[in-house]
Amino acid sequence: MATIAVHVLNGPNLNLLGQREPGIYGTLTLADIERQVRERAADLAVEVTFRQSNHEGELVTWIQEAGLAGVGLVLNAGAYTHTSVALRDAISGAKATAVEVHLSNVHARESFRHRSLIAPVCIGVIAGFGPRSYLLGLDAVAQAMRDRAGAPS
Amino acid sequence: MATIAVHVLNGPNLNLLGQREPGIYGTLTLADIERQVRERAADLAVEVTFRQSNHEGELVTWIQEAGLAGVGLVLNAGAYTHTSVALRDAISGAKATAVEVHLSNVHARESFRHRSLIAPVCIGVIAGFGPRSYLLGLDAVAQAMRDRAGAPS
Amino acid sequence: MATIAVHVLNGPNLNLLGQREPGIYGTLTLADIERQVRERAADLAVEVTFRQSNHEGELVTWIQEAGLAGVGLVLNAGAYTHTSVALRDAISGAKATAVEVHLSNVHARESFRHRSLIAPVCIGVIAGFGPRSYLLGLDAVAQAMRDRAGAPS
Amino acid sequence: MATIAVHVLNGPNLNLLGQREPGIYGTLTLADIERQVRERAADLAVEVTFRQSNHEGELVTWIQEAGLAGVGLVLNAGAYTHTSVALRDAISGAKATAVEVHLSNVHARESFRHRSLIAPVCIGVIAGFGPRSYLLGLDAVAQAMRDRAGAPS
Amino acid sequence: MATIAVHVLNGPNLNLLGQREPGIYGTLTLADIERQVRERAADLAVEVTFRQSNHEGELVTWIQEAGLAGVGLVLNAGAYTHTSVALRDAISGAKATAVEVHLSNVHARESFRHRSLIAPVCIGVIAGFGPRSYLLGLDAVAQAMRDRAGAPS
Amino acid sequence: MATIAVHVLNGPNLNLLGQREPGIYGTLTLADIERQVRERAADLAVEVTFRQSNHEGELVTWIQEAGLAGVGLVLNAGAYTHTSVALRDAISGAKATAVEVHLSNVHARESFRHRSLIAPVCIGVIAGFGPRSYLLGLDAVAQAMRDRAGAPS
Amino acid sequence: MATIAVHVLNGPNLNLLGQREPGIYGTLTLADIERQVRERAADLAVEVTFRQSNHEGELVTWIQEAGLAGVGLVLNAGAYTHTSVALRDAISGAKATAVEVHLSNVHARESFRHRSLIAPVCIGVIAGFGPRSYLLGLDAVAQAMRDRAGAPS
Amino acid sequence: MATIAVHVLNGPNLNLLGQREPGIYGTLTLADIERQVRERAADLAVEVTFRQSNHEGELVTWIQEAGLAGVGLVLNAGAYTHTSVALRDAISGAKATAVEVHLSNVHARESFRHRSLIAPVCIGVIAGFGPRSYLLGLDAVAQAMRDRAGAPS
Amino acid sequence: MATIAVHVLNGPNLNLLGQREPGIYGTLTLADIERQVRERAADLAVEVTFRQSNHEGELVTWIQEAGLAGVGLVLNAGAYTHTSVALRDAISGAKATAVEVHLSNVHARESFRHRSLIAPVCIGVIAGFGPRSYLLGLDAVAQAMRDRAGAPS
Amino acid sequence: MATIAVHVLNGPNLNLLGQREPGIYGTLTLADIERQVRERAADLAVEVTFRQSNHEGELVTWIQEAGLAGVGLVLNAGAYTHTSVALRDAISGAKATAVEVHLSNVHARESFRHRSLIAPVCIGVIAGFGPRSYLLGLDAVAQAMRDRAGAPS
Amino acid sequence: MATIAVHVLNGPNLNLLGQREPGIYGTLTLADIERQVRERAADLAVEVTFRQSNHEGELVTWIQEAGLAGVGLVLNAGAYTHTSVALRDAISGAKATAVEVHLSNVHARESFRHRSLIAPVCIGVIAGFGPRSYLLGLDAVAQAMRDRAGAPS
Amino acid sequence: MATIAVHVLNGPNLNLLGQREPGIYGTLTLADIERQVRERAADLAVEVTFRQSNHEGELVTWIQEAGLAGVGLVLNAGAYTHTSVALRDAISGAKATAVEVHLSNVHARESFRHRSLIAPVCIGVIAGFGPRSYLLGLDAVAQAMRDRAGAPS
Repeated sequence: MATIAVHVLNGPNLNLLGQREPGIYGTLTLADIERQVRERAADLAVEVTFRQSNHEGELVTWIQEAGLAGVGLVLNAGAYTHTSVALRDAISGAKATAVEVHLSNVHARESFRHRSLIAPVCIGVIAGFGPRSYLLGLDAVAQAMRDRAGAPS
Repeated sequence: MATIAVHVLNGPNLNLLGQREPGIYGTLTLADIERQVRERAADLAVEVTFRQSNHEGELVTWIQEAGLAGVGLVLNAGAYTHTSVALRDAISGAKATAVEVHLSNVHARESFRHRSLIAPVCIGVIAGFGPRSYLLGLDAVAQAMRDRAGAPS
Repeated sequence: MATIAVHVLNGPNLNLLGQREPGIYGTLTLADIERQVRERAADLAVEVTFRQSNHEGELVTWIQEAGLAGVGLVLNAGAYTHTSVALRDAISGAKATAVEVHLSNVHARESFRHRSLIAPVCIGVIAGFGPRSYLLGLDAVAQAMRDRAGAPS
Repeated sequence: MATIAVHVLNGPNLNLLGQREPGIYGTLTLADIERQVRERAADLAVEVTFRQSNHEGELVTWIQEAGLAGVGLVLNAGAYTHTSVALRDAISGAKATAVEVHLSNVHARESFRHRSLIAPVCIGVIAGFGPRSYLLGLDAVAQAMRDRAGAPS
Repeated sequence: MATIAVHVLNGPNLNLLGQREPGIYGTLTLADIERQVRERAADLAVEVTFRQSNHEGELVTWIQEAGLAGVGLVLNAGAYTHTSVALRDAISGAKATAVEVHLSNVHARESFRHRSLIAPVCIGVIAGFGPRSYLLGLDAVAQAMRDRAGAPS
Repeated sequence: MATIAVHVLNGPNLNLLGQREPGIYGTLTLADIERQVRERAADLAVEVTFRQSNHEGELVTWIQEAGLAGVGLVLNAGAYTHTSVALRDAISGAKATAVEVHLSNVHARESFRHRSLIAPVCIGVIAGFGPRSYLLGLDAVAQAMRDRAGAPS
Repeated sequence: MATIAVHVLNGPNLNLLGQREPGIYGTLTLADIERQVRERAADLAVEVTFRQSNHEGELVTWIQEAGLAGVGLVLNAGAYTHTSVALRDAISGAKATAVEVHLSNVHARESFRHRSLIAPVCIGVIAGFGPRSYLLGLDAVAQAMRDRAGAPS
Repeated sequence: MATIAVHVLNGPNLNLLGQREPGIYGTLTLADIERQVRERAADLAVEVTFRQSNHEGELVTWIQEAGLAGVGLVLNAGAYTHTSVALRDAISGAKATAVEVHLSNVHARESFRHRSLIAPVCIGVIAGFGPRSYLLGLDAVAQAMRDRAGAPS
Repeated sequence: MATIAVHVLNGPNLNLLGQREPGIYGTLTLADIERQVRERAADLAVEVTFRQSNHEGELVTWIQEAGLAGVGLVLNAGAYTHTSVALRDAISGAKATAVEVHLSNVHARESFRHRSLIAPVCIGVIAGFGPRSYLLGLDAVAQAMRDRAGAPS
Repeated sequence: MATIAVHVLNGPNLNLLGQREPGIYGTLTLADIERQVRERAADLAVEVTFRQSNHEGELVTWIQEAGLAGVGLVLNAGAYTHTSVALRDAISGAKATAVEVHLSNVHARESFRHRSLIAPVCIGVIAGFGPRSYLLGLDAVAQAMRDRAGAPS
Repeated sequence: MATIAVHVLNGPNLNLLGQREPGIYGTLTLADIERQVRERAADLAVEVTFRQSNHEGELVTWIQEAGLAGVGLVLNAGAYTHTSVALRDAISGAKATAVEVHLSNVHARESFRHRSLIAPVCIGVIAGFGPRSYLLGLDAVAQAMRDRAGAPS
Repeated sequence: MATIAVHVLNGPNLNLLGQREPGIYGTLTLADIERQVRERAADLAVEVTFRQSNHEGELVTWIQEAGLAGVGLVLNAGAYTHTSVALRDAISGAKATAVEVHLSNVHARESFRHRSLIAPVCIGVIAGFGPRSYLLGLDAVAQAMRDRAGAPS
């Protein structure tokens, strides 16, 4: 099983995890999630990079880099999921192989969180399973990249 | 790891899989998916029941049974995802622990498929990974049920 | 006072009553409601039939039967209230004398429950009074049928 | 059975009843309805007050008085049902126990009559049964007040 | 002219035809329409099957059977025309050759009857000509199937 | 030419005319308009009553009085034109013969002034001609009442 | 009183008047209306031209001619009232002094007739008074033109 | 079988048929369709007139002529189907007996083609069968006119 | 610092303050707020009048009086904020200098409370600070009136 | 550089240019624009035809002629830009190479001018530059036609 | 009175103040506002930090810092008020005590400025008072923080 | 001809040009476009600056700089065209002379790309001509700036 690369990108406010509202989001921090992701990545022989930014433009640049380098994406775009055409264009423009993930079940929250501008250009969506959404997303994108690599040209 | 039970329910037209349109949905039949699900269930020590119905009412009844018996649900409600308040009420009324899954990325299809009436009462949603959506869904629901079982009362 | 006949029809998930969520719906089961309905029916000299189905099509058939036989209807269509043009057409097509009832005050719940496709073809609507909604509905439909029977042709 | 008090409030234009359009509304006047209501109230040991006003502000004041005095409400707000946030705020602000009633089946009329601003803060709604809507509403509110009175604190 | 097969499927409440509302729908029953359809089918050398169901799920199954067997469809889905994504998916999933028909001119009725979820996956639509809509639909689907059969591969 | 009676009713804020914003509404006061209306009424042998109120409920009552007394109405309901279902119900409930008038061309102002709840129950609408809208409205309602009076029963 | 000129323009289908549907529109033909208009014009010392066209483009041209020549307009644009931005632009582009008239009360008909694209660029609107709408419109436009002529520059 | 008359009217751009885009519309020209229509008309003993215009106003005039002369209509209004209130008024104003036809299945195209302003005033609609839509439409309108002619007055 | 005058007007249900729902609105009554306002007014050398009404028409009249007299307004229109065009017209018609205030943060409540018909004709809006909203509003309107008074003509 | 042909088509009311409202549109007439276009056409070796019509049908015909003859189009459809499906169908049906131009910046005007029915079937859009929009449009369409002519088949 | 800390954050384009459009925004620069804010802060014993950024991501970070540090916020998010879910999530995620302020009365401007995504998670809103909005906001947030500090736990 | 300055600003993802999807966007890179723009600028004696950023805030700052320095703008805001009120405010706040350009015909793409928040504050829009859109935009903005410079004050 050849090593493949995946970037796990986190959007605005995800750096806040575990610092407030433990009743809702639990006491896990983003560093805790990163640790879980790295463990699973090791099992899957996936080389993982883990980043967070509050800047839409920085996320656009990171997505472009991943897409152009043939690196897979697990993307929790946070609030930009619902407002950013730029992230969408970055994914489709750089032909990135991306999976959209969310900690919470966005469909059970405010109605403006039901629309994802990004989902139509991702392979798929995983939402609602807390930190496990990332692990499931990593499985899914790794497998999708292996399928493509193995497909006859 | 104690054995837990999960019902995998399939809605209308999923019995058609693999019989037509291999270009879109591949040549896998629902029976092939069932086989993959059973293998994964064995790995996870999950006791699995796999059913399909074209009848909204029958799906309502099956969801009730699962919910009342404390059995988890992986639910691909097909077209009823977008039109059935009855399925939603069955899940919430019977307090079922359910994960919504879809073979295709519904967010990349017609706009009437972007709205899920069921998602708000599920734990989470997994869509777009073909048969693997079921396997990821099985992982997710099994883990969620184990978490709940282990939580102090 | 001549005996008249009324069918009390219950839609999807009403069989769940009292088995879960006693905090919201109380501990009364559908059988308890049936008992109350039968007692009131005896007082009113009404011959009552009490049925529940999760199937939209079965409800359509039952409504047709009642309408064609000149039997009155107390109809709690549950979730189908908000989605079924077929139930509506059954009532108007079979010229059924129907009263729409709901246990909860649907106007105080999610907005998709505010619209009733069935109400425009019923005599009237009674919602929000728990099991008593059925008793008030029985009074109303019985009286309406007596009025019509007594009206000069 | 202790005596309880209920105010029956009528909104704009209900004073017109029976003076015009007998084909639609029948020949009953509001005074006739009052007489029927008083008879039923006597049977139920309910002390009844019956009022009508064309003024939104006067209805607001009357609802407040009833709510603050622990008096139940049968409220036919007429046209204000569909336009008045003030009546809604009066009911919820004074914590009034109210039942919304209508002579006609408002759901079968113009679409602007399908929305009730008041229903979400009432216990329930009864519509379409002519003067009998008031009697059914009186039953319902009286019973609800007795239930609350009898509930352990 | 080789014999071809067509299934004529009727949705909810079409079994009511001729039993009520002769002023609107005439006194023809569904059996009368079936007789007319069979006569025309004989003229066209078409082998015809004629069915009715109030169940959405049963119609889904019948559509699948027809589509998979290469049988043409004349489909009067009644109320499900306006609400069922499942029927739509059945037609497109089973690649059925279908013509949508209606007795009445649905465009001249309530606005919720103006939208057809099914029409986009049918060859065409015929509405408003009473029982003759079926005969015109039979002509159209038979001819379409002959065209396809005769087309060079 | 027999004398007929017409009530000219003015809604909220029309008492402000001529006191502010002469650039828009001119320097004419409501008393000036009344004088012009009375002169024209004399020419037309119409007995005129001229009133203004800021109270929706008072306007409802005045409309009822006119309707029940067979008196015609020239109605400038001001802001209530766009928000009052109660005025509409008063006109239709009391079968008043009414003409809706406006000083300004409401269609050229904010979009919420384009909708009139009252117009559908009036004979017609005259808007945009300043005080002359009242004179044209008086002509129109007087003529309409004479036509009806002269029509054979 | 100096003679002024007014063009009375009639849009599509107004040539049909009096030939069909006397129950709705009466038996008056467009020629009858023209005669009444000419009589009133004589009284008002207005020189009148009376035209009808089914062509949107022809009406655009006529409106331009009137506007550029300083001739007033009484415009019954018929169906184009609700769909034609071109007529609107002709009126505002040629700075025509126009009054919109309608025989029927368009606000009491189908909802697509409630919106007028033309009204915002007219002085005012008169609707619902049958042929008298034209006479009232002629009064209004004549007076408006006299006012403007008499205004100090 | 007495001869009856039908006008087949074609709206804007239908004169382009067969000159471009044979992949979509085939190589049939409007003249070819006319020939097929004339053949079928001969079989049906229908006297047929076949016309095309790009002008909305001309189509209005033609529809009026047909309606007033008691001639039936097969109407493919092309793009005007979706935008013209004038055509609708012509059909209803002249009481024309009309069938709306379309070559393509308009319901499977852009959403602005799903709304027909004309359909509510036609007997029925036939869409999606290519040139055969005209032949089916001719059958339908001829039969409808014969039914009416034969109906007792 | 010259004394200036401000009217503090309170709309429907604000008289209920402190009598019910202390959990939400606290135990302050409207009289308590009036006292605080009067204290602050004294500090600011503002002559204050404090009024409450449940009647839309009465509020219209009070706003007119203030506007015409050059008196400033602090206006908590309560529920009428969201429904009353008449209040809006009173403010703009009488050229009142008004500040809109709310006790609660209306933007965090039901969506029909997000729209203010009055805000566009006020100087500004202050919402969410409990009784302090009034004090901040008094500061703001007093300062605005002083600015205007001091501005060169 | 071979000579190519371009038709410059102007829709309704563009003949009014320069005759009214010089404050907005300047004093340039359509003839002035034509002269500028002809000069630029000479520079570009483009053979130009310049036309204006108020008739939608005539514009449809002209677009068809240009499309079928392989002539490019600079199209200022005026008001029909926002309402005409027929112009759109003419462009796509005749496969015309068209550029949409506007004198004013339509996006800064009334909202009904923000939607163009024509733009999706044009190569591109140029709006807001006064007469220069035509010159830029001529450049663009000429270059596009040369590109296509030079492309290898 | 203990010193408390407040951050005053300014969003995009607020750095432009006073450099352009003095007619609308006056000649005050952001530095002038800062000076006024600092003066008032001194009076209130509030330690103030004053910042501006055109970057949504930088504002997210600043809001998080303030929220986590227990520092109050006066937030003029400028254009991001209407488009940024990320700012909203920062406020609620970091549990910041924030007051939304605006120089202009946003409710009197374009309709897309009427919706605030941020207001529902702020204590309250102050808009329309120019630089004084900041001073009133500072008063409000300081008082709110003192109230909370003083509240018993 | 005096030299004038123009900044050509490119929004998110335009740096990707030519690296992917040559089938859609061709093989031209942003550097190629820059070269073409510089050549044309030389011809027009325009001093050009060419920039790209994925950051909304950076684009805001650049627009401000250009506007304040009296430098013209050719702005391809990419995805921010459809979502950024901040860019709009930057243009209007700094009174920038801007032309909006797009490589593709945005009106022929997804509906969320049809709305431009920026267009109303630009002089005009040019879309659909590939790299030539920039050249046409440069012509247009240069000419507009020369016109303004030459206009008498």
